[in-house]
Amino acid sequence: MARIVMKFGGTSMAGTERIRRVARIVQRQQAAGHEVAVVVSAMAGETDRLVNFCREANPLYDPAEYDVVVASGEQVTSGLLAMHLQALGCSARSWLGWQVPIKTDDAHAKARIEDIDADALIASMASGEIAVIPGFQGVSPAGRVTTLGRGGSDTSAVAVAAAVNADRCDIYTDVDGVYTTDPRIVAKARKLKNVTYEEMLELASVGSKVLQTRSVSLAMKEGVRVQVLSSFIDDDAPAADTIPGTMIVSDEELEGLDMERQLITGIAADKNEAKITLTRIADRPGAVAAIFGPLAAANINVDMIIQNIAKDRGETDVTFTVPISDLARAQALLEERKDTIGYYRMLSNGKVAKISVVGVGMRSHAGVAATMFRALADRGINIQAITTSEIKVSVLIDEDETELAVRVLHTAYELDGE
Amino acid sequence: MARIVMKFGGTSMAGTERIRRVARIVQRQQAAGHEVAVVVSAMAGETDRLVNFCREANPLYDPAEYDVVVASGEQVTSGLLAMHLQALGCSARSWLGWQVPIKTDDAHAKARIEDIDADALIASMASGEIAVIPGFQGVSPAGRVTTLGRGGSDTSAVAVAAAVNADRCDIYTDVDGVYTTDPRIVAKARKLKNVTYEEMLELASVGSKVLQTRSVSLAMKEGVRVQVLSSFIDDDAPAADTIPGTMIVSDEELEGLDMERQLITGIAADKNEAKITLTRIADRPGAVAAIFGPLAAANINVDMIIQNIAKDRGETDVTFTVPISDLARAQALLEERKDTIGYYRMLSNGKVAKISVVGVGMRSHAGVAATMFRALADRGINIQAITTSEIKVSVLIDEDETELAVRVLHTAYELDGE
Repeated sequence: MARIVMKFGGTSMAGTERIRRVARIVQRQQAAGHEVAVVVSAMAGETDRLVNFCREANPLYDPAEYDVVVASGEQVTSGLLAMHLQALGCSARSWLGWQVPIKTDDAHAKARIEDIDADALIASMASGEIAVIPGFQGVSPAGRVTTLGRGGSDTSAVAVAAAVNADRCDIYTDVDGVYTTDPRIVAKARKLKNVTYEEMLELASVGSKVLQTRSVSLAMKEGVRVQVLSSFIDDDAPAADTIPGTMIVSDEELEGLDMERQLITGIAADKNEAKITLTRIADRPGAVAAIFGPLAAANINVDMIIQNIAKDRGETDVTFTVPISDLARAQALLEERKDTIGYYRMLSNGKVAKISVVGVGMRSHAGVAATMFRALADRGINIQAITTSEIKVSVLIDEDETELAVRVLHTAYELDGE
Repeated sequence: MARIVMKFGGTSMAGTERIRRVARIVQRQQAAGHEVAVVVSAMAGETDRLVNFCREANPLYDPAEYDVVVASGEQVTSGLLAMHLQALGCSARSWLGWQVPIKTDDAHAKARIEDIDADALIASMASGEIAVIPGFQGVSPAGRVTTLGRGGSDTSAVAVAAAVNADRCDIYTDVDGVYTTDPRIVAKARKLKNVTYEEMLELASVGSKVLQTRSVSLAMKEGVRVQVLSSFIDDDAPAADTIPGTMIVSDEELEGLDMERQLITGIAADKNEAKITLTRIADRPGAVAAIFGPLAAANINVDMIIQNIAKDRGETDVTFTVPISDLARAQALLEERKDTIGYYRMLSNGKVAKISVVGVGMRSHAGVAATMFRALADRGINIQAITTSEIKVSVLIDEDETELAVRVLHTAYELDGE
């Protein structure tokens, strides 16, 4: 017997038939003898509908009232799933954020979970009742409804799993696991049996949208075993235990599991960056701070930065990337400070892609970056910028070459399955 | 300065433009110097949508989970109205049922309000903040979401008005007050400036759907002054104080207000009754109990009853009315007990209407019923059954003659305006 937290996203909860299917998947876990809690998202599209009402009400809406409105989507699906489970003969009840309670700070619309009083939840689960918990929501110190920000239900699930000391947190999504790369790009992509928290974090942060980054950080911090599974398995199939998805584990656990470790775990592509170049900046102390200070103050996240070698007249070009959604704001801000910064021209390009190779194996192997650069150069793909971390190498390339680059690298690192 | 509770129904809350209109009506009350709380319904159609999901989930749904699901409709509109008010520059916040708290019993889906802790609400209103409260919902002793049954938002509004000791509870509806009769039937119907609680109760119970009966009982018990107003007034019009709807007051207050009191206040028609006749029942003790006992046990509300004079062979015919929605159930139940009851035939007729004349004036005047019978007889309208209360006389007639009867009586009691 294990204690399991299961999480289902909005696509899995979209309408009566799909919720019924989820109920059957949950029922099978209980029938297998497990104690079960389920965390649910709102029906797909519902949160957007509610957010739209908020925007129409007041473009500068009060985030505390926004939370009251949007938290209702998960409230509805939690009640409905409890009813569907009851229809299957299971004992089940919903636990709203304030009922558990899932205590958060008071940063409405982007709250952080501070503590979960799980005693009542654990008692209920131990009695054989399935606990159904709306994801994404909590309650502030002042007793008001809070939400965790878009995609927060993954974080809710991991936090509940940590609080009830669950043996596993199963995240059911519309993919059946984490792949070496996007199978829509590379047909020979392989599903990974295991991936480390650090790798998952790097993959999540560079565009592999299987899990919300925050939920992976939390799982790593709390040591929650997270499994990514498909919710679109045949609902007559055996219990999920026997249909492995991808298990996210610690470095230590991975070493025990996987002797023939690959050098590279996965390859991710991210088209959501834009490149800005400021030309002919004075090559003096403080020049770079004049650019990046204001961007940081405006909450614009700068990723890659390249500063060209100063030319003989004491000037330099600075190139960097920002999220494409912040490009217009960044341009306006830099235009405004043209004189303070002292650049000649601002160039920008939204048609770029960041390609990243990720793997804990590269810690102990040299030459990973060299392999990447050579493989891309052999196919004539020009590298516009480079960043590295301990377990990741990223390059910026022309967006049109995204798929080609991913395929070339997937083969170069010998990741292709049959 | 007064303390006012305003209530808006689902039609008034259906979508962004209508909620904005409501916000302007509320803002005008505050601008007039009043302390304001607002009770809101869900958007028209939303509760039906949610109830439908519940039925699909489980025809025998758990009312506790039903409440979690359907209470979300009012949660959404309360948050949205708070945002709209803020957009107009008002200070406003939503207070969910569990936040106030509005304490109910644990009869989920048809809960009764037991107590409202109004201290926080009063403090907030006194500080100039508009309190926006979702109608229809409360919290049970076990801390779970409850709802008051369909139409419960009127009751929420009156209960909040009593708890905050409001000077007035304004119920905004899609009519602009209580009329002497339905203006769609009688063009010369007049809007009443005042009506007593007892009259309103009788009118509500016989098909005048302006207010939920429970809310009127509660207002009478708690002495809450209730005003019925239209929410479709021009939103550039002056504050509601100057656009009188109908005020519901006590008998004593009415005597002070209205010297030239009419004998009859209003005439209502109700087509939701059906007539059942059981023929040739033995005229012996217990025969009638054998009919009405099982109907009561099945929660079928019997209204009018006529027992014909026993014929010489010791048999009698019994005729009575039930809500038309319960007709099939009542027939099945009586069919099943044909031998126990011992009747010869069961006849039924759904094409009947109950016409009621209501007025506290009839307490001190004889001849009200006689006027009614004569006026109907003069137009050849046959009376099938009669019931009376202290302030009401009702007759059952052929449904086809409903409008004719209402017009005849409106003239007979000299209610016609110009």
